[in-house]
Amino acid sequence: MGIEIERKFLVKHLPDAIDSYPHTTIRQGYLIATDTGIELRVRQKAGRCFQTIKMGEGLSRTEIEIDLSQDQFDCLWPHTSGCRVSKIRYKVLVGEYTAELDRFDGDLAGLEMVEVEFSSVEASQQFAPPEWFGAEVTEDKRYKNKWLAKNGKPGE
Amino acid sequence: MGIEIERKFLVKHLPDAIDSYPHTTIRQGYLIATDTGIELRVRQKAGRCFQTIKMGEGLSRTEIEIDLSQDQFDCLWPHTSGCRVSKIRYKVLVGEYTAELDRFDGDLAGLEMVEVEFSSVEASQQFAPPEWFGAEVTEDKRYKNKWLAKNGKPGE
Repeated sequence: MGIEIERKFLVKHLPDAIDSYPHTTIRQGYLIATDTGIELRVRQKAGRCFQTIKMGEGLSRTEIEIDLSQDQFDCLWPHTSGCRVSKIRYKVLVGEYTAELDRFDGDLAGLEMVEVEFSSVEASQQFAPPEWFGAEVTEDKRYKNKWLAKNGKPGE
Repeated sequence: MGIEIERKFLVKHLPDAIDSYPHTTIRQGYLIATDTGIELRVRQKAGRCFQTIKMGEGLSRTEIEIDLSQDQFDCLWPHTSGCRVSKIRYKVLVGEYTAELDRFDGDLAGLEMVEVEFSSVEASQQFAPPEWFGAEVTEDKRYKNKWLAKNGKPGE
């Protein structure tokens, strides 16, 4: 799956008429999530279900995704209890980029983050965040979905 | 899935006409196998495919199994390279019990083990192994399938 070059920010305020942007509901839960980066995640997004496996570290890191049937998802989902994230994801144009803006609900209600993906490190460095972006949290592990699922909102 | 009460033995010699007993080919591989007992295994048995997840430790240990489609299996299997076991499993009547006799192939060719499952600890203690059973290896972790997959035949 290659290396993703992304920057992640909190949200100072939402774009006007946020619900007019394309959006979809995502819920995901972790069956396995170790401190060494091994991960088994199930996700339901726009009615489709997936399983993602992350193994290894550094350069040997591998990510595998397979489609799950609804039945398979329904069988695995109860076992993610206590380690879940639920959110609405909006696609928002920011200059030449399509940012993904996540509004969390459930235990994480109120948390909003926006992520932009780049084709190169250089492009990521040249990116000028628009006025409505908040503090950058790219390197802050407390804002990783897995961390949020396990530990809740940072600072609470 | 409850607690399994099993005893496992090496095989001194095979029962006569072993191929006349019901048998099936099993291949299984591990995508995740940590020292703390977390495990993600895929298995193909008699043409059917499964995924088994083992999580937690001790009394909170959970085992979940879901059916996989052949496509899903085919997608995951290549990622088990280097951590696989392949064997033929025979069902052999031993007194009132149906023992499972595994003859391994591939890197583990020559290894044979037989396992008997009991309904109680008492029954397992009263079990008298037949003459063709070899040394008991119930408690020897080197004979666990996961260990064999990772490390090969004990003593080699």
